[in-house]
Amino acid sequence: MALEIIILAAGQGKRMRSSRAKVLHPLAHTPLIGHVLNASAKLQPERIHIVIGHAGEQIQAYVEQTYPQLPIHWAQQTQQLGTGHAVTQVLAHLPADAQVLVLYADVPLVNPQTLKALLAETARASLAVLTLELDNPQGYGRILRNTQGQVCAIVEEKDASATQKAIQEINTGIMATDSQTLKTWLPKISNQNAQQEYYLTDLIALVAQAGMDVASYCAQDALEVTGVNTKAQLAQLERAYQRCQAHALLEQGVTLYDPERLDIRGHLECGQDVTLDVNCIFEGRVRLGNRVTIEAHCILKDVTLGDDVHIRAYSHLEGVDLQGHNQVGPYARLRPGTQLATGAKVGNFVETKKAYLGPNTKANHLSYLGDAHIEAEVNIGAGTITCNYDGVNKSQTYIHQGAFIGSNTALVAPVTIGAQAVVGAGSTVSKNVSAGALAVSRARQSEYQHWPRPQKKQQQES
Amino acid sequence: MALEIIILAAGQGKRMRSSRAKVLHPLAHTPLIGHVLNASAKLQPERIHIVIGHAGEQIQAYVEQTYPQLPIHWAQQTQQLGTGHAVTQVLAHLPADAQVLVLYADVPLVNPQTLKALLAETARASLAVLTLELDNPQGYGRILRNTQGQVCAIVEEKDASATQKAIQEINTGIMATDSQTLKTWLPKISNQNAQQEYYLTDLIALVAQAGMDVASYCAQDALEVTGVNTKAQLAQLERAYQRCQAHALLEQGVTLYDPERLDIRGHLECGQDVTLDVNCIFEGRVRLGNRVTIEAHCILKDVTLGDDVHIRAYSHLEGVDLQGHNQVGPYARLRPGTQLATGAKVGNFVETKKAYLGPNTKANHLSYLGDAHIEAEVNIGAGTITCNYDGVNKSQTYIHQGAFIGSNTALVAPVTIGAQAVVGAGSTVSKNVSAGALAVSRARQSEYQHWPRPQKKQQQES
Amino acid sequence: MALEIIILAAGQGKRMRSSRAKVLHPLAHTPLIGHVLNASAKLQPERIHIVIGHAGEQIQAYVEQTYPQLPIHWAQQTQQLGTGHAVTQVLAHLPADAQVLVLYADVPLVNPQTLKALLAETARASLAVLTLELDNPQGYGRILRNTQGQVCAIVEEKDASATQKAIQEINTGIMATDSQTLKTWLPKISNQNAQQEYYLTDLIALVAQAGMDVASYCAQDALEVTGVNTKAQLAQLERAYQRCQAHALLEQGVTLYDPERLDIRGHLECGQDVTLDVNCIFEGRVRLGNRVTIEAHCILKDVTLGDDVHIRAYSHLEGVDLQGHNQVGPYARLRPGTQLATGAKVGNFVETKKAYLGPNTKANHLSYLGDAHIEAEVNIGAGTITCNYDGVNKSQTYIHQGAFIGSNTALVAPVTIGAQAVVGAGSTVSKNVSAGALAVSRARQSEYQHWPRPQKKQQQES
Repeated sequence: MALEIIILAAGQGKRMRSSRAKVLHPLAHTPLIGHVLNASAKLQPERIHIVIGHAGEQIQAYVEQTYPQLPIHWAQQTQQLGTGHAVTQVLAHLPADAQVLVLYADVPLVNPQTLKALLAETARASLAVLTLELDNPQGYGRILRNTQGQVCAIVEEKDASATQKAIQEINTGIMATDSQTLKTWLPKISNQNAQQEYYLTDLIALVAQAGMDVASYCAQDALEVTGVNTKAQLAQLERAYQRCQAHALLEQGVTLYDPERLDIRGHLECGQDVTLDVNCIFEGRVRLGNRVTIEAHCILKDVTLGDDVHIRAYSHLEGVDLQGHNQVGPYARLRPGTQLATGAKVGNFVETKKAYLGPNTKANHLSYLGDAHIEAEVNIGAGTITCNYDGVNKSQTYIHQGAFIGSNTALVAPVTIGAQAVVGAGSTVSKNVSAGALAVSRARQSEYQHWPRPQKKQQQES
Repeated sequence: MALEIIILAAGQGKRMRSSRAKVLHPLAHTPLIGHVLNASAKLQPERIHIVIGHAGEQIQAYVEQTYPQLPIHWAQQTQQLGTGHAVTQVLAHLPADAQVLVLYADVPLVNPQTLKALLAETARASLAVLTLELDNPQGYGRILRNTQGQVCAIVEEKDASATQKAIQEINTGIMATDSQTLKTWLPKISNQNAQQEYYLTDLIALVAQAGMDVASYCAQDALEVTGVNTKAQLAQLERAYQRCQAHALLEQGVTLYDPERLDIRGHLECGQDVTLDVNCIFEGRVRLGNRVTIEAHCILKDVTLGDDVHIRAYSHLEGVDLQGHNQVGPYARLRPGTQLATGAKVGNFVETKKAYLGPNTKANHLSYLGDAHIEAEVNIGAGTITCNYDGVNKSQTYIHQGAFIGSNTALVAPVTIGAQAVVGAGSTVSKNVSAGALAVSRARQSEYQHWPRPQKKQQQES
Repeated sequence: MALEIIILAAGQGKRMRSSRAKVLHPLAHTPLIGHVLNASAKLQPERIHIVIGHAGEQIQAYVEQTYPQLPIHWAQQTQQLGTGHAVTQVLAHLPADAQVLVLYADVPLVNPQTLKALLAETARASLAVLTLELDNPQGYGRILRNTQGQVCAIVEEKDASATQKAIQEINTGIMATDSQTLKTWLPKISNQNAQQEYYLTDLIALVAQAGMDVASYCAQDALEVTGVNTKAQLAQLERAYQRCQAHALLEQGVTLYDPERLDIRGHLECGQDVTLDVNCIFEGRVRLGNRVTIEAHCILKDVTLGDDVHIRAYSHLEGVDLQGHNQVGPYARLRPGTQLATGAKVGNFVETKKAYLGPNTKANHLSYLGDAHIEAEVNIGAGTITCNYDGVNKSQTYIHQGAFIGSNTALVAPVTIGAQAVVGAGSTVSKNVSAGALAVSRARQSEYQHWPRPQKKQQQES
């Protein structure tokens, strides 16, 4: 049977105190609903129905841009009359025979394995509810079971007897069923309650009372069914998620100097014997080879590092590819399009952008290398600047193998420095330099013997 | 009735192991006694009596400089004979009819609301004591009550019976009374105890035994009555206070990636949809507009940021004003007197000081801009340096609208670059440049074909 | 009696998931076995027998290089047949009469004081075992005692009765004995158990059953007997150790803004009234004088700072010596061989290496000073670069007292700037400058009035 997933995303999220739709707030840099869609995609559903209401257009914009490949159907819930009412907006769009899974866009860390296990329960029951065991279940709806141990209803905290309050198994709200069951019983839910809302939860008792089987599956980890209603809860879930990722890395053999001071916002893949010092942040897709060391306070986004790369403290790498045995930093900023060949080295206060540095080439100090192709064994002196921008156009600097660029040099692109050429310190190079030549652009040094040093003026402030 | 506040600040604080007066140690960058004075000021007292002893001159110097507007009266306690003795030093200076509130300079987080509630209790009692309920009250003086539930005495841990030890309501030491009560009963306190000290606490039993009413008010939060005696306690209180501030921001809708890695040392005001990444530090008075994002590892002190400002990682801003839609950093250092107009941009390894950058002006790389006024739409090339200092005097650089400053350029102030002018890369500009002109100061580039590269000398070390 | 220490280091440590020997993984930058050797050295043993097996050559290489002064004897355990079997490899090398202490290379934080106390127990017993009291002893071998209270055996969790499981005193594995006892009883240990291994632990029951006294000493702190088997355990021990060091600093009077965000990987010595802000890292041997302040996010390795030094945020100091009253940073990188005399100042984006800055000399912005000797009262302008490297050789720059180096200047070493000399901004100085002279190397500034600004080309990408 095909699978139809319904994701409820219509709530206002007023307690987030934000102008942004609640489900677009990021957990580890991915919006809450993005996590739910990632998990959903792994179940290969026939369709994903997203029920939107408040700020629906923001949600649509994000989802359509980020997940163009997913078979999304948008359903509007113009009035917020409860979760049962939200699911009702989808009813007419469900095929006659399909599995149906109900998820929540503000419960981001649902685990596809758990959802598969829940769906498997529908093989032998009309409806299956995802539950959780809590040491302190206070505040949650408890799972009631009949004498055969079958789920027969949910009782909310406020309606629960003392005996019922002692039940530690709670309802997560996530449920699996089939479209037939949903189409039959959902319209029978009533709103005769304090809030005058239609609760999806009531489906359970209805189905059970009709003599049909209700199954359950118990989630292993509270994290995967935790919802977000406030910024405090979001921050808490962020940390729990980060802790979780840190422990997965430890399991895998990565050395972490402090698992509590690590942030992974995307996907981090590590080779063997990788060491991550404190306060590092990884964003997008980062791949680290064997024996890579990242010192403290580094930020890496969309980066691939080969084996034996050593990134020194305070370095910021984005959209770069290091082929191996590179030493970078401290305080290096490698921007998109930077490629370091084996053994190339970038030092402190150096910025690179769309720059290739060949094998063993070094740029150790205070330089800007943009739109540059630099071959092997080149030495870039301190304070070298590629003048790649004339105010409207960007141009290329090409430095051939073995050249030596003296310190405090400006290379006015487009310009080419020949192999083994030397550029004298302090030069501004605007014409190509031949291979093997020495190029200098330097005014004669003059000395004035009896030059009076400037005198302090009155009323100067420092 | 007017209010007289007495702040006890005479203790030596030997356990702080410091040459600095204990109450001058900072919590969130404000000395402990500063917090108490801030809270006191909110109660608009007639006078604040500060009892000093050890290192009193340090305390006086700090308070007089920082709180010139407060009505302080200094009382000396030359011998440290207990809290009762300390308050006695003030007795003669209290008017006949006044409310009196006793605070401690090493209990920094007292809450003015709580103190007001405590003072309100004196409407119906001669003395009111601030208490606290603790799960584990061990070590603290317990509040004893008579059969009518009225406070009748304090019993110290060492003198307490098993039943008394089970009492969870403890004495915080903070109390409110009136000058008449204080003048009558304080002289009757005895020092017949192990330490031979006069304990202010004993006032409670004396007053109660005399048949007068003793009221109490229970503090909501242990934080507000926590005292500091060691650096470990100071660090603990610092973290508790920071956690508290982080949670207030979350409540207000600010997104924090890690509430445990945030430090606010002063006052942080946030607009809507503000995001703060990990390890940021805010000092002095910082105001952030709507949709401001501060990336990781930033430090902001006395800063105002308009809407939609994005501060990238590792940036350090102090005494600056950004008008909106600015992108700054990573690794930008904006020093006092920097003003960025709407859309102005400062990039990596750029330092500014007393610099105005007009709308959409950009200084993206490795520059120093000091004492500079730069109009709109100017491009400052990489490695530009304003030479604003001749060793004794500072001078101004003025760059008019739309100018283009080539890379690796030195602007020798005082100097003016005209509107739409262009300065060629590598120039040293010491004369004004006319509007629309191209200015270049560059030696001719020469090439030497058969120049021998330097040879490695013997016995060179790297 | 002489002391022989046996350190077991033969285990594979498969759960570390590393190609490196387990005992070489670092805790606070020192390999686990290094910590054990440091503790061992304090007991002044006659010999230290290290039993190696897996990756033994890695361990030998590290130990021989790092501890050449220690009297190490290497013993091979080619098959891993248990701890008893491991110790057996040493038996033949023990003198007839010696105290013997058995330690584990993966239990790094053993405390020499505790070990001395344990050894003292052997004065009155044939064998003494180090024990620990745990609230939750689950999983550990419990200490069984006879009716006289003497240790008589260890019972493992799986073999323990309910009564035995309630025992909270556990075996740490660390034991002290004499070579006679060891030589007599170790060969009698059997491998008739599930794993078919020889357990050193069994020695206890054997000795006790033979009617000899077995003593015990209970460790004060779980930390000192915690072993490491996984990266998660290593990270946990790292944090516990760092917390411990932070609290020792607090005790001593150091102000820490966050004890949880401090890393000491080596030895940190602090004067009075030192303040350490968040996220600082100390490596190697660091000595801080009185009233030193280290701002947030700094890294200091092998550094000596005199009194009243202020290191601003994001600074990275390695192998440097600051004599006092220096202000450094933010974003300063002082590399090995840097020496700052009293009052010298280094500012943002400045790198120094083998550089001496005399009293009150300043290098405030964007400079590289390598192989430089700079006397007192010199001002180094923004963007100054010492060109100390010609591609093969390093040369020296010498700047005499009171000189003023203009901004954006290249000093081509070897070169000397005389006392009180001035170098004009933007100069490239390749010849010595006389004392008191003004040196300039600057091309004439030309202006071109009707110069057309570059036009945007088609198909340019940004």
